[in-house]
Amino acid sequence: MSLFRPDVDRIAGYVPGEQPQESGWTKLNTNENPYPPSPRVAEAVQRAAGGRLNIYPDPLASQFRQAVADLYQVEPDWILPANGSDENLTILFRTFVDPGELASSPYPSYVLYETLADIQGAGYERLALNADWSWNWGLAEPVAAKSKLVLVPNPNSPSGNIWTDDELMRLLPDQGVLVVDEAYGDFRDASHGVEILQSEIGRRIVVTRTLSKSYSLAGIRCGFAIAHPDLIAGMRKVKDSYNCNTLTLAAGLAAVQDQEWMQHNTERIRSTRSRLTSELRTCGFDVVDSQANFVWATRDDGRHEEIYSQLKQRRILVRYMSFSDAVGDDEVDGLRISIGTDEEIDIFLRALSEIL
Amino acid sequence: MSLFRPDVDRIAGYVPGEQPQESGWTKLNTNENPYPPSPRVAEAVQRAAGGRLNIYPDPLASQFRQAVADLYQVEPDWILPANGSDENLTILFRTFVDPGELASSPYPSYVLYETLADIQGAGYERLALNADWSWNWGLAEPVAAKSKLVLVPNPNSPSGNIWTDDELMRLLPDQGVLVVDEAYGDFRDASHGVEILQSEIGRRIVVTRTLSKSYSLAGIRCGFAIAHPDLIAGMRKVKDSYNCNTLTLAAGLAAVQDQEWMQHNTERIRSTRSRLTSELRTCGFDVVDSQANFVWATRDDGRHEEIYSQLKQRRILVRYMSFSDAVGDDEVDGLRISIGTDEEIDIFLRALSEIL
Repeated sequence: MSLFRPDVDRIAGYVPGEQPQESGWTKLNTNENPYPPSPRVAEAVQRAAGGRLNIYPDPLASQFRQAVADLYQVEPDWILPANGSDENLTILFRTFVDPGELASSPYPSYVLYETLADIQGAGYERLALNADWSWNWGLAEPVAAKSKLVLVPNPNSPSGNIWTDDELMRLLPDQGVLVVDEAYGDFRDASHGVEILQSEIGRRIVVTRTLSKSYSLAGIRCGFAIAHPDLIAGMRKVKDSYNCNTLTLAAGLAAVQDQEWMQHNTERIRSTRSRLTSELRTCGFDVVDSQANFVWATRDDGRHEEIYSQLKQRRILVRYMSFSDAVGDDEVDGLRISIGTDEEIDIFLRALSEIL
Repeated sequence: MSLFRPDVDRIAGYVPGEQPQESGWTKLNTNENPYPPSPRVAEAVQRAAGGRLNIYPDPLASQFRQAVADLYQVEPDWILPANGSDENLTILFRTFVDPGELASSPYPSYVLYETLADIQGAGYERLALNADWSWNWGLAEPVAAKSKLVLVPNPNSPSGNIWTDDELMRLLPDQGVLVVDEAYGDFRDASHGVEILQSEIGRRIVVTRTLSKSYSLAGIRCGFAIAHPDLIAGMRKVKDSYNCNTLTLAAGLAAVQDQEWMQHNTERIRSTRSRLTSELRTCGFDVVDSQANFVWATRDDGRHEEIYSQLKQRRILVRYMSFSDAVGDDEVDGLRISIGTDEEIDIFLRALSEIL
């Protein structure tokens, strides 16, 4: 007899990217920002660390919510902070999806969505994409329509492409909620607000954001959801009371208040992204035009896994990803390469030219 | 049409104790430790804040798990760190309880257990206690037996009493898991390990611990579960990959490695607890002998809510709690008073003598 829920027995659990704890690696595998966070973050954390850590955090995260609300020109009751975007995704499932109801997301995409559906005992179906990462509307639209929760990363991972707001609107379920996961939103060429929420159907849309990528704060676990206050109020019932700790809230506040720092770094990453894309194409890769802090690179000769392994032997980590039955019945695989510093990308390109 | 799950619509959500964000309050309402954490914690956080916050935390929390494992004389795969004990409680429900299955806990006790059962779509029943906080075995034992998850805080809240390991064993479900929530375990007069896990039936028991209380770290959200590796492996599938952030893990490690600091503070709290208990009894309160960092005080004249309000007017917060149908059909209410510093308890006692 197993003590676990059958759904828990059944799943393997989400496997995050490799996180070597020793130094000496060129780490281009988990879409971290290669630049440090704003110096104001360390100051704020050091101040908070000398403060009253024996007291619970502000359960409403008032200052942080106000700062984020100002940034997106909404009221604070439109904002739900969380322990990373992962926690907001978990909260979304637990708020909106009953066991047996359907969740869906594009495929290939962030595989955590399916894991979360499994844990919730929900059904899960893929929203079909074409080989060029455009929607296969004939297959995708009916699945989205009948879902309780549709999750779309925009920009998408591993591809890095973006879809338009008009396309996203076509994926709004008839009687459910559309989640637009903008983890990589700050890396777009043109900045993009939450206009999509400011309409009648916007009352059924949740945008999620994270400080892990553009604000260089993967280590502090801080994300937030933006949605109509009616939706946020339900999600708040489900979250743990003190889900964001005192140090994270201090760091997050300082980071959000230093927009200049974040913009400067995302600009540098966009510039390196252009260069990496060109160089990879010169080396015989097909590369999707990326609006994120990574690129998706494939080759006709299919040497992806071998190149990944050879890079790893040189202590360079990229992400080898393989998606079965991705387009039609075809497997899609390739390399997802995070945008590092120019120096890191030089190390990567030198190694690559040796391997090829 | 509501977009929410019916269970989410139905619940009010857990309401945490009041957390005024401005200073000037004597705060004896949420069982925080009045003493600061070990100075090593601020040092560790400051060091971590100057480190690589742009990189994800160690998803295995290896150093922290090793330190906790050493403390409890188990292997690291017996330990699951979490974003506060609240997250481990959430993980326990999502790992072991399917919708429609039964969870149970003593009543009166920590009300979050019932909220988590509601969110999970589980059934919930109370394990009956007598007026003196002993078990009503005739009622409690059959409910525990048929539960999938039994949750027992030991020491209990709001009463502060403890139950013996032999009593806890009688509450082990026939085909489920017993959770012993030892959030207040370090405040017991005699230290208490996890011997309860070292037996065949121990393979169906999970002990949860937190750094919020005895280690004075409510602000950093750090708890851990201790259980047989088979149980921990299933719980790990359900948790978010990076549930504990870099700063929390650094703080938690430093705190656990300074046992002397924690022991010194818990000893002071035990001493203040004795004094407060005597003084309250002198003022006409009935006070349960407490093994936690709070006391449960009641009066025959039933003036609990009025006293709470009058204290609040003086900027002194204690917790007024009311439990309907607690013993038989009787409502139980009273004041739960956290053990502050001796100075804070003096302020409280002076105000109390004015009110009475």
